[in-house]
Amino acid sequence: MSEQAISRFPVPKLEDLPDDVRELILEVQEKSGFIPNIFLALAHRPAEFRAFFAYHDALMEKDSGLTKAEREMIVVVTSNANSCQYCVIVHGAILRIRAKDPLVADQVAVNYRKAEITPRQKAMLDFAMKVCRDSAAVSDDDYAILHEHGFTDDDIWDIAGVAAFFGLSNRMANTISLRANDEFYMLGRVPQ
Amino acid sequence: MSEQAISRFPVPKLEDLPDDVRELILEVQEKSGFIPNIFLALAHRPAEFRAFFAYHDALMEKDSGLTKAEREMIVVVTSNANSCQYCVIVHGAILRIRAKDPLVADQVAVNYRKAEITPRQKAMLDFAMKVCRDSAAVSDDDYAILHEHGFTDDDIWDIAGVAAFFGLSNRMANTISLRANDEFYMLGRVPQ
Amino acid sequence: MSEQAISRFPVPKLEDLPDDVRELILEVQEKSGFIPNIFLALAHRPAEFRAFFAYHDALMEKDSGLTKAEREMIVVVTSNANSCQYCVIVHGAILRIRAKDPLVADQVAVNYRKAEITPRQKAMLDFAMKVCRDSAAVSDDDYAILHEHGFTDDDIWDIAGVAAFFGLSNRMANTISLRANDEFYMLGRVPQ
Amino acid sequence: MSEQAISRFPVPKLEDLPDDVRELILEVQEKSGFIPNIFLALAHRPAEFRAFFAYHDALMEKDSGLTKAEREMIVVVTSNANSCQYCVIVHGAILRIRAKDPLVADQVAVNYRKAEITPRQKAMLDFAMKVCRDSAAVSDDDYAILHEHGFTDDDIWDIAGVAAFFGLSNRMANTISLRANDEFYMLGRVPQ
Amino acid sequence: MSEQAISRFPVPKLEDLPDDVRELILEVQEKSGFIPNIFLALAHRPAEFRAFFAYHDALMEKDSGLTKAEREMIVVVTSNANSCQYCVIVHGAILRIRAKDPLVADQVAVNYRKAEITPRQKAMLDFAMKVCRDSAAVSDDDYAILHEHGFTDDDIWDIAGVAAFFGLSNRMANTISLRANDEFYMLGRVPQ
Amino acid sequence: MSEQAISRFPVPKLEDLPDDVRELILEVQEKSGFIPNIFLALAHRPAEFRAFFAYHDALMEKDSGLTKAEREMIVVVTSNANSCQYCVIVHGAILRIRAKDPLVADQVAVNYRKAEITPRQKAMLDFAMKVCRDSAAVSDDDYAILHEHGFTDDDIWDIAGVAAFFGLSNRMANTISLRANDEFYMLGRVPQ
Repeated sequence: MSEQAISRFPVPKLEDLPDDVRELILEVQEKSGFIPNIFLALAHRPAEFRAFFAYHDALMEKDSGLTKAEREMIVVVTSNANSCQYCVIVHGAILRIRAKDPLVADQVAVNYRKAEITPRQKAMLDFAMKVCRDSAAVSDDDYAILHEHGFTDDDIWDIAGVAAFFGLSNRMANTISLRANDEFYMLGRVPQ
Repeated sequence: MSEQAISRFPVPKLEDLPDDVRELILEVQEKSGFIPNIFLALAHRPAEFRAFFAYHDALMEKDSGLTKAEREMIVVVTSNANSCQYCVIVHGAILRIRAKDPLVADQVAVNYRKAEITPRQKAMLDFAMKVCRDSAAVSDDDYAILHEHGFTDDDIWDIAGVAAFFGLSNRMANTISLRANDEFYMLGRVPQ
Repeated sequence: MSEQAISRFPVPKLEDLPDDVRELILEVQEKSGFIPNIFLALAHRPAEFRAFFAYHDALMEKDSGLTKAEREMIVVVTSNANSCQYCVIVHGAILRIRAKDPLVADQVAVNYRKAEITPRQKAMLDFAMKVCRDSAAVSDDDYAILHEHGFTDDDIWDIAGVAAFFGLSNRMANTISLRANDEFYMLGRVPQ
Repeated sequence: MSEQAISRFPVPKLEDLPDDVRELILEVQEKSGFIPNIFLALAHRPAEFRAFFAYHDALMEKDSGLTKAEREMIVVVTSNANSCQYCVIVHGAILRIRAKDPLVADQVAVNYRKAEITPRQKAMLDFAMKVCRDSAAVSDDDYAILHEHGFTDDDIWDIAGVAAFFGLSNRMANTISLRANDEFYMLGRVPQ
Repeated sequence: MSEQAISRFPVPKLEDLPDDVRELILEVQEKSGFIPNIFLALAHRPAEFRAFFAYHDALMEKDSGLTKAEREMIVVVTSNANSCQYCVIVHGAILRIRAKDPLVADQVAVNYRKAEITPRQKAMLDFAMKVCRDSAAVSDDDYAILHEHGFTDDDIWDIAGVAAFFGLSNRMANTISLRANDEFYMLGRVPQ
Repeated sequence: MSEQAISRFPVPKLEDLPDDVRELILEVQEKSGFIPNIFLALAHRPAEFRAFFAYHDALMEKDSGLTKAEREMIVVVTSNANSCQYCVIVHGAILRIRAKDPLVADQVAVNYRKAEITPRQKAMLDFAMKVCRDSAAVSDDDYAILHEHGFTDDDIWDIAGVAAFFGLSNRMANTISLRANDEFYMLGRVPQ
């Protein structure tokens, strides 16, 4: 286990946290076997912590025309574009698990256009990258392309929402030097 | 009053909204005299609506080493960098009101480096723009420069938080073609 | 009235100027009610002053397939791309007046693609931005697109000319820190 | 002599031109032995022609703290940055002649930082490139650096003026596909 | 084992190759237990194959002031900047093995500035990225910074050489859609 | 003859070089009448020297669907994009000779899109620039466009190979400040 700091900012002790924040963290720990560092680092700001995970779950946990693996692809691709170590490593692991595929995360992180995914998924990622890099240029043409691939307007909102939310997450992680837990590097690499 | 659509997506009727969402909207309407379009447009997604405004208030309404006007400066500057019409026009108005200055919003929107603000505020905006454009390059040197201007580490978190949150907001507004209410264009331009 | 310097360079007194320069300035003052700062700042260099306003009038005052409001749109859009405070604020005012529309200037300044203007005007501004950002890539295809929107070759010259001339103006204004007169911020915002 | 078109636009006959325009062109022809194509191409628009050459002469012909060769260096460097064939080829020739150096133009066109010029000239070109690429970032620091190299404020205006004026020229030449006369390619390459 | 094509181009059979090319490939296979796809893909062009691996070995196998792990860091960092799937995945594996560190490759791939490496290694990677992205700006200042970190001029040549050579490799791999062997994804992740 | 250093690194004496390296250099000298500086500068590293020229000859000397002049066009265009003085000046000379055209090199160096070359050559250079600038985006569409212009897959490999190899060469030349011999500036400018 690394002794590296997980954030530039103070990491509160569990016992000092508001009850709801501590309970959410303990729940994650029970489910995952460890506490992903973002929970500890954001607990420095309980109000932002609550809003962050509420937003996260609203986008990532709900039913959607995008599978959970597809939503994780968006996270991995846009987070590498933003050079966010935490999100590429952590969500790369989640993507491997969601997709039951040990290769796809490393492929899309570097260049989704050459990854072994469907043309529909490439169109989804083209749009996610446009939202990430040049959202001002999003136009009717983008909607039309995505409709051709079978995405609904609400799916398009979801793609943009995931790209936009993790853009926020990437910027915060980069600012506070959030460190990915060692556990994530290997998760999902060996079929269970 | 314009007849233009305020969003590419359906705008729900107030009476169809969950109670908490409707109440929040009515409260804003009472306070402002009208409903800023982002409330109506995001109400299409109540879970995201709740998380969005919780996050917004956690950053923009709390006590901070940054004045409310300074936080609005960050919004205006980074939103013009992201070419987000809604946020530049709406938060330009809020900045004029918060700063009691009819000129500052238009100045910082175009080029904060030549705006009539303090060197400390320019350093704050330099950092906000780095978070907006190249957060991966944020380093100890940036912290040191901001410390010299009297910002604490938590102030730095606040600057990054505002830039990151409105980065999300800009990307969503651009994706859904959110329209600024006509009222905002004149707000704060004439001293009261 | 602001006490801020209007230029990094010395601003000559009217009585010290060559007659033709002083007369042109007094004429503008009579027409506008005040002297826009660019006249005073450029008067530091009478030969450039004369050429600058001769060029300006050759493009902006003549008959053209572009309305005067359309020419001002080009100025506002490309000047925000070049982050020129003076030109966005001053020509935003002139655009509001020419177009008799208090909203259009703020809209096109931030993102003309989402402004309430015609598709023909968006095509005009796409081309103006190409001239502004990447004129080396201008090609037959650009001419063809503009022809489809009803622009003649000479209209295309006009679009390029306005974008190119204000590119010069933006660079000079940024270099000398030209300050927009306070009067411009409100001009054209209230219907007369 | 090439049979290539010199411009996308009609090139007027000398006899159809206003007297002052025709006389200026004939004067240049007498001095140079041929008519540089920009004179013929811009004659399509006599009012712009007059303003263009008045502006050109105000910057390039006057006494200045910059030598004429130095002003041509600025033209060559910024014109290659803007990928303007006409200006790199034509002003490369003029630079060779002004500097009495057959190598310097090709060197600065590609990378002035590795050209055989003085540190003062490199500082001048650094600033010219900043005006060309990112004039909004020009600051007191740039002035200070240039002062250290012995440039006055008015020299700085001159550097910016040349970069800005040829930015206009580059954009027009690119838009109208202005062709450099064959004569320029060899001019100044062989010591006289 | 994947059935995916390893290159857009025909992959020659071992028995059809020139003897020296076949022997080099068999040697690698014996050492590694499998044939990295780049050997098979480049064998389509035996003359380029020979030069490529001669160049590779001249830079990567020789004694140098840079450790072999450090040279692999350069490869991983610049290859992600060039979005080259093959080189990030394959050289990530080699880096893990060379450095005996299962985490470092994923860290430097995304953002070496936040990786757990030494300041000297970060300076090395800053320079490698400058060679990758903007080699024309390499200057005495870069040499001075690297000297301060204890690098010799010949070490600097090595850094540039590795960045430049893999820039070639990245561009070819991207053009021919070179696929990384499945074996590389797990190599070096589990301590032996 | 200039007294300028030809490289930041020591230039070995011919008599100190390994026999094969010295012989290759003497052969070039006999053929050209002088020794291009790259031979002397790279001789500082004999193993890299051998691989470099083997790679060079494999791409530039062989039979190909691209003429030798076309291959030199690729070098000149991509080398100006990389701001490599040595390669633009030296390969500009070789291009003039190969194409028996004193104008083409200066034209393509600045803007190949406006050069007097064939549409097929412009398509070739569009692709070379994509390999130079954004090889990760190379796709089936690029292959299709080139096929329409009559290029085979192996021609496409050649275009990419030349762009990629000179990308390496540009980065090394920029790092070591390689100086072009004075002879190259005039070569091929006067018909023989």
